Amino acid sequence: MRRFVIGRARNLFETSRQNYQFQRPLLSSSQSPFRFLSSTPVADSPSSSPSSSSSSTMAPPVTVNTINPKVLECEYAVRGEIVSLAQKLQEEIQTKPEAHPFEEILYCNIGNPQSLGQQPITFFREVLALCDHPSILDKSETQGLFSADSIDRAWQILDQIPGRATGAYSHSQGIKGLRDTIAAGIEARDGFPADPNDIFLTDGASPAVHMMMQLLIRSEKDGIFCPIPQYPLYSASIALHGGTLVPYYLDEATGWGLEVSELKKQLETARSKGITVRALVVINPGNPTGQVLAEENQRAIVEFCKQEGLVLLADEVYQENVYVPDKKFHSFKKVSRSMGYGEKDISLVSFQSVSKGYYGECGKRGGYMEVTGFGADVREQIYKVASVNLCSNISGQVLASLVMSPPKVGDESYESYSAERDGILSALARRAKTLEDAFNKLEGVTCNKAEGAMYLFPRIHLPEKAIKAAQVAKTAPDAFYCRRLLSATGIVVVPGSGFGQVPGTWHFRCTILPQEEKIPAIVTHLTDFHKSFMDEFRD
Amino acid sequence: MRRFVIGRARNLFETSRQNYQFQRPLLSSSQSPFRFLSSTPVADSPSSSPSSSSSSTMAPPVTVNTINPKVLECEYAVRGEIVSLAQKLQEEIQTKPEAHPFEEILYCNIGNPQSLGQQPITFFREVLALCDHPSILDKSETQGLFSADSIDRAWQILDQIPGRATGAYSHSQGIKGLRDTIAAGIEARDGFPADPNDIFLTDGASPAVHMMMQLLIRSEKDGIFCPIPQYPLYSASIALHGGTLVPYYLDEATGWGLEVSELKKQLETARSKGITVRALVVINPGNPTGQVLAEENQRAIVEFCKQEGLVLLADEVYQENVYVPDKKFHSFKKVSRSMGYGEKDISLVSFQSVSKGYYGECGKRGGYMEVTGFGADVREQIYKVASVNLCSNISGQVLASLVMSPPKVGDESYESYSAERDGILSALARRAKTLEDAFNKLEGVTCNKAEGAMYLFPRIHLPEKAIKAAQVAKTAPDAFYCRRLLSATGIVVVPGSGFGQVPGTWHFRCTILPQEEKIPAIVTHLTDFHKSFMDEFRD
Repeated sequence: MRRFVIGRARNLFETSRQNYQFQRPLLSSSQSPFRFLSSTPVADSPSSSPSSSSSSTMAPPVTVNTINPKVLECEYAVRGEIVSLAQKLQEEIQTKPEAHPFEEILYCNIGNPQSLGQQPITFFREVLALCDHPSILDKSETQGLFSADSIDRAWQILDQIPGRATGAYSHSQGIKGLRDTIAAGIEARDGFPADPNDIFLTDGASPAVHMMMQLLIRSEKDGIFCPIPQYPLYSASIALHGGTLVPYYLDEATGWGLEVSELKKQLETARSKGITVRALVVINPGNPTGQVLAEENQRAIVEFCKQEGLVLLADEVYQENVYVPDKKFHSFKKVSRSMGYGEKDISLVSFQSVSKGYYGECGKRGGYMEVTGFGADVREQIYKVASVNLCSNISGQVLASLVMSPPKVGDESYESYSAERDGILSALARRAKTLEDAFNKLEGVTCNKAEGAMYLFPRIHLPEKAIKAAQVAKTAPDAFYCRRLLSATGIVVVPGSGFGQVPGTWHFRCTILPQEEKIPAIVTHLTDFHKSFMDEFRD
Repeated sequence: MRRFVIGRARNLFETSRQNYQFQRPLLSSSQSPFRFLSSTPVADSPSSSPSSSSSSTMAPPVTVNTINPKVLECEYAVRGEIVSLAQKLQEEIQTKPEAHPFEEILYCNIGNPQSLGQQPITFFREVLALCDHPSILDKSETQGLFSADSIDRAWQILDQIPGRATGAYSHSQGIKGLRDTIAAGIEARDGFPADPNDIFLTDGASPAVHMMMQLLIRSEKDGIFCPIPQYPLYSASIALHGGTLVPYYLDEATGWGLEVSELKKQLETARSKGITVRALVVINPGNPTGQVLAEENQRAIVEFCKQEGLVLLADEVYQENVYVPDKKFHSFKKVSRSMGYGEKDISLVSFQSVSKGYYGECGKRGGYMEVTGFGADVREQIYKVASVNLCSNISGQVLASLVMSPPKVGDESYESYSAERDGILSALARRAKTLEDAFNKLEGVTCNKAEGAMYLFPRIHLPEKAIKAAQVAKTAPDAFYCRRLLSATGIVVVPGSGFGQVPGTWHFRCTILPQEEKIPAIVTHLTDFHKSFMDEFRD
């Protein structure tokens, strides 16, 4: 009987294969559907043959030589070897405080503000707590513990969640009501309409970037344009997805300027090597470089992407982090729309995160991407990939809606909220200036202004002797310098080689996040270390 | 000068390439390092050449024909076409209540308990709220709003977080103190030691599964053994990572038994096709099949993986969902260790999630994988991949520690906690039995017992006429049945073809999650629909 049924199934399968949801994922291109269907159960016909590879019993199933080589290729310097060394030193300090010439490790390697003492925005945390435990919302004690507008906002948010179920999977793009709020926030920011159906809420910006790389990269012949220096998420994600990073260099001499002439030249070079460049990544404000793009520069970039048929991937997670009066953040969506380019003219993805800005809620893993200028069929594919992970975490979704719609004038929390926000942003601006000045005072060091973001990327002109010593130590010269800095001061920074730099130039990335009371000591330790390093290696 | 520096850099590069963290990700295997290094900045030498492809201005940069074909191949039935239709119907009901013969859509397609009214465990939510807004911890009103042990637990957790910063990125494997708690929970469950350094906290179990697929799959020649029927996350993840799903069939006749003879036969078939089978996925308790494996069966599976050198990927997210007195959950780690197999003998990954069990916190995206039996160098690679996404969300991490360490006898919350837990689990058991009986009463329908998990997977013996009608409608017969069911009753179930089934047999997956007061109506509607369907198509 079953045999007959199977026979019928095969005919069915051959006549209308495309309608079988399931078999398709099973079929790698090398397999014919029939070959898969032919492997039917045999549980009722016991197999007599013995294990065909008892030899494999000895060897472990997985070694570094047998894992996916793309995983091996991928590097992520921000949490790389220097950080591992730092963690080792931290343990040593705890067990033997006198083991090292410093009392603590200062993590200036990563944009993780709250790990260095930055406090979260009270209103945001009130709303999160109330959404996590809604049953206290109508208790009288709650009035005494929470601001009135945080209670109102929590009710609003709960009413936007089907069944007020904050523990349920949401729509794979995120809760519709929260996407409405975010779209309204984008409209208020840009002065151009935003569609909640273009918003994909994600666990921070990183998964959104991976999703786009997964969509765009077919093989190593597909290239993604990235700035050099770049944030290593991009090089890591491109490596994991098997594509090729096509570099364009930011011009340090003009404050990390992004020249379209450079884009054109590098595009030609890549095409001459048979690389199909699919997208251009722009990080604005810049990471690790801290520059804020001028609007006319952004227009030129939009024009270039339109001309060359490139998807514009706009990393705009530092949109709230601008520290100089003469610069302002403009989203690439606003810039393109103000040029008269709409949905049909340019494919643009904007990434935003709750981890940066004045909120710095890295641990909450909230963020979104706004996806515009793609066909409905491509959008469906993006939705499908999002749906495989079901949805992003609801607290992160709530937080993303809050950062795009903070308290307004007249709300009970407005004054405390704006005081907290301004306090954080002005302190960041002061620290950026102090560190920038300190770096520029060091022998052989030049440091561009941190106009925005959370980093400085000073250039070190290393003496020949230091470069030779690094060669002997089998490490990059800037990594050699950073390791020496860590061992001498406990200050953790990331070598420029982790971000990319003009060959033969050396840099490191240092965050502006340590608390203000610690900055003077950091400056002193940096200065002393640098002097002794130069004395040791000066040509 | 720069030219000289670059020249020197190239020499350095050739002499110690392996020490350059950065360039490696840029180099797809087809590129020589020199070819990348040769593309140096040209911003200072303006490019004269015009845009080389103004032709591409017209065509959109991305179409379904130019995206990653692996994305196109991937399917995820649990949120597939039937669910899209359901969402459409739901909107129609809201605008035109009389448009359809039902008042609401009943989502029995996905294990999302709180979306159907299941309440979260109060203690868990208290702790989450306090960790989100720690500044209320020492306020007097808090004593009135929160249980004493939730306050204590929140303090314990905060003390495990460096700087009590719940908004900071954590260690990429998750907060060490929480991993200690989870490891202790695993030890208490299994009676064998667990190492916190083997725990990787993730945003639900899905990203953990993706991470392992990414690590193991090199090409379509690498196969992953999956049960048929399977949970579509596996087929989707394997497709996205470009591998081949190697099926082994569960035997419906013996209550979805997992026969090692079937594993052996399918392994030989796969090897004869040139497929290297790397890992075996076992879902216990089963999804969609609901069976709980007997311990002797698990031993045979462990022995098979050891003999054949396969990584055992144990999906154990339903470990709390066992409904029959004669079956008990045993983790594969416990089973292997009780067989005397340790770290060196078997590579085993166990997946756990906060989304299932009695807690059902799907929206919190918490979970972990326990990774044992891999070399330190492979572990480093897993850590690197985890670090590219920085860390999983902290609320999910906290929740994962809570589900592995709930209130104990004597704690203030213990009674309310255990009452909530037992209420949920016994209600799930009752609903499973009611639906199972109802399905078995239907003409031509047979349904195995739901021993565990959250699903029933009844088999429908569809009449020839229905199968022909499905062919005409260009859909799989079971999808045809499910769509008819939805249109007639508003009940959403997932066709068996989304999970895989013996060719020529037809099933659907129905969750046991609707609230108890709704079950009688569901049974009536199912029964009436099925009768009229059979009347329409009976041969």
